[in-house]
Amino acid sequence: MIVLGSTGSIGVNTLYIAKKFGLKVETLVAGRNTELLQQQINEFQPERVVVGDLESKEKISHPNVTYGEEAILEAIEVSKSDVVVNALVGFLGLKPTLKAQELGKKIALANKESLVAGGKFIDCSNITPIDSEHFGLWYLLQDKKQISKMYITASGGAFRDWNVKDIAKASLADTQKHPNWSMGQKITIDSATMVNKIFELLEGYWLFKDKFHTAPALDGFIETKSIIHALIDFVDGSTTAHIANADMKLPIAYALMRKVDTEILKPVDFTELGSMEFRKIGTDRYPAWKIKDELLANPDLGVVVNSANEVAIDSFIKGKCDFSDISRNILVTVEKYKGITLNCVDDVFQIDREIRDRGIYPFK
Amino acid sequence: MIVLGSTGSIGVNTLYIAKKFGLKVETLVAGRNTELLQQQINEFQPERVVVGDLESKEKISHPNVTYGEEAILEAIEVSKSDVVVNALVGFLGLKPTLKAQELGKKIALANKESLVAGGKFIDCSNITPIDSEHFGLWYLLQDKKQISKMYITASGGAFRDWNVKDIAKASLADTQKHPNWSMGQKITIDSATMVNKIFELLEGYWLFKDKFHTAPALDGFIETKSIIHALIDFVDGSTTAHIANADMKLPIAYALMRKVDTEILKPVDFTELGSMEFRKIGTDRYPAWKIKDELLANPDLGVVVNSANEVAIDSFIKGKCDFSDISRNILVTVEKYKGITLNCVDDVFQIDREIRDRGIYPFK
Repeated sequence: MIVLGSTGSIGVNTLYIAKKFGLKVETLVAGRNTELLQQQINEFQPERVVVGDLESKEKISHPNVTYGEEAILEAIEVSKSDVVVNALVGFLGLKPTLKAQELGKKIALANKESLVAGGKFIDCSNITPIDSEHFGLWYLLQDKKQISKMYITASGGAFRDWNVKDIAKASLADTQKHPNWSMGQKITIDSATMVNKIFELLEGYWLFKDKFHTAPALDGFIETKSIIHALIDFVDGSTTAHIANADMKLPIAYALMRKVDTEILKPVDFTELGSMEFRKIGTDRYPAWKIKDELLANPDLGVVVNSANEVAIDSFIKGKCDFSDISRNILVTVEKYKGITLNCVDDVFQIDREIRDRGIYPFK
Repeated sequence: MIVLGSTGSIGVNTLYIAKKFGLKVETLVAGRNTELLQQQINEFQPERVVVGDLESKEKISHPNVTYGEEAILEAIEVSKSDVVVNALVGFLGLKPTLKAQELGKKIALANKESLVAGGKFIDCSNITPIDSEHFGLWYLLQDKKQISKMYITASGGAFRDWNVKDIAKASLADTQKHPNWSMGQKITIDSATMVNKIFELLEGYWLFKDKFHTAPALDGFIETKSIIHALIDFVDGSTTAHIANADMKLPIAYALMRKVDTEILKPVDFTELGSMEFRKIGTDRYPAWKIKDELLANPDLGVVVNSANEVAIDSFIKGKCDFSDISRNILVTVEKYKGITLNCVDDVFQIDREIRDRGIYPFK
């Protein structure tokens, strides 16, 4: 490749990536930072070097050094590389971009002024922007990237801001005070215990396990405004997020029609939103969260968690146990069925029956 | 379609979407909320209705009402619809899901317990989840959605937290105190004036204008931690975001290799991050931002903004003008060139020359 502006921060990072992936550097172009340039020459052994002025040229030890703006264009002209990294500063970056375009080279473009001033005359199909913002936009438009982890978010439910010690004895009415919206009674309790999020992780496992190249990895955290709903971490270190006002009409419209090019919701206005807050799902506040990893490691336990949860909620609604007994019943029941394997769908109904018949912990 | 659980919040939203898009409702299934169910029957005229118990059946006026769990399975069996919306609550939702699967119907699934308990025996290829979290994950994995707007974020630069009245007389050294990272001198000044973000919007215009079905729409806002870099609003009301630790190695690796399945950066840890803050880009603090809309409406003005900016920065660095004169010079110069059209690439170089020769405002 040809690196224009090799001693600036983009240039330095470019050479880091070139080294990491063994990419050949044919030409180095820099201004007046001759000390760093000389180090780069020694390390990458380019065939050709261009510097800013005669004074700098005299400080550089290399068999083929030229200087000045015209020399940059000549260096591009004679280079065999098909990639030009243009990290020059200012309007003087435009001519090299036009020259690279004329020669049909691919341009990795950090020089903003090329597009700002000359965008009308540049064919963007040969350009990849080196800029976090445009890279971000480009990235969001790609598919088939390698996934490392999926995250879903939780509101935190009715007790996210309570003193932990008060939660154990919370009433049914307390469980129904969801911070962000109103839902049915059972799911609102599941939101307060965080069981709803454990269920969603397991659903996510079944729905998306084939999307991973390696073992499925799923986790959750609290986003208090329920605006970010899901995130995907990719192997490269990028994360993408799905953001929308919390309203089930959107998933429903897609579930029914697959493709929706009509406005279902108003988009989120970030500056009106002002801020977002992220919290860990702590097992002091949400004891049921302790089984998350075990459950994802053995998803056959799903029926156990579900039945233990339904039995306990039923008991809690009838005033026969405390709120904390819901999570306790789940943990104790999972412990009992540790290592279980489901062999057929009838096993699901049989285990459900067993757990319901046994009733809530301490078992009869 | 068949709607199981039509009187719950998912059911109600499902019927809203059915009405909006004229989708036919063949079967309604609900528990004991007979009042709402009767309204739904009157509005959607389903062929078949199932309720929870005999008492509820007697309150409903419809020629074909049955009740109980077995009746739900029979109703699915005899229905011609190929979509079942399963919004039942709890374990009793599993059998209807298995029945719908057996009949080869598509399942829009809000009943979590189907997958939690029976996931091992469910073919997820026929399932679309009705759940913000799984919808979010699914959405992030799709391509070719219709775009309504693109956003890039700004750090806010050196003066984002200054009193506005102090900014006009800021020194060169002050401009270099970037809140989030260290870059070259010129781009750090551009960050303080917000000219850098204006440039990026214009770059975004050239790079991505063909991705819009309607007129390109681009905007920016401040995200103080520089973790979210770019966002795309889609017509449906969803937004996707690209998130990564701020490090140019990632865009560089992609610019050089197009596809990267190696860890370049560590992923962002949201619970460690704790919070995010979003702010408007105010024109009191960033006067150059006033030209953003005019520039995007006539991108040919890019060279004018760039040259006026470079001339003024040069003057500012030499101590010949105030910091506020950079934005002022841009606004005054753009006013002079309003409505300009570039006809060939030579025009770019000629206008640049003119603006440099004229020098900074007030012009000689």
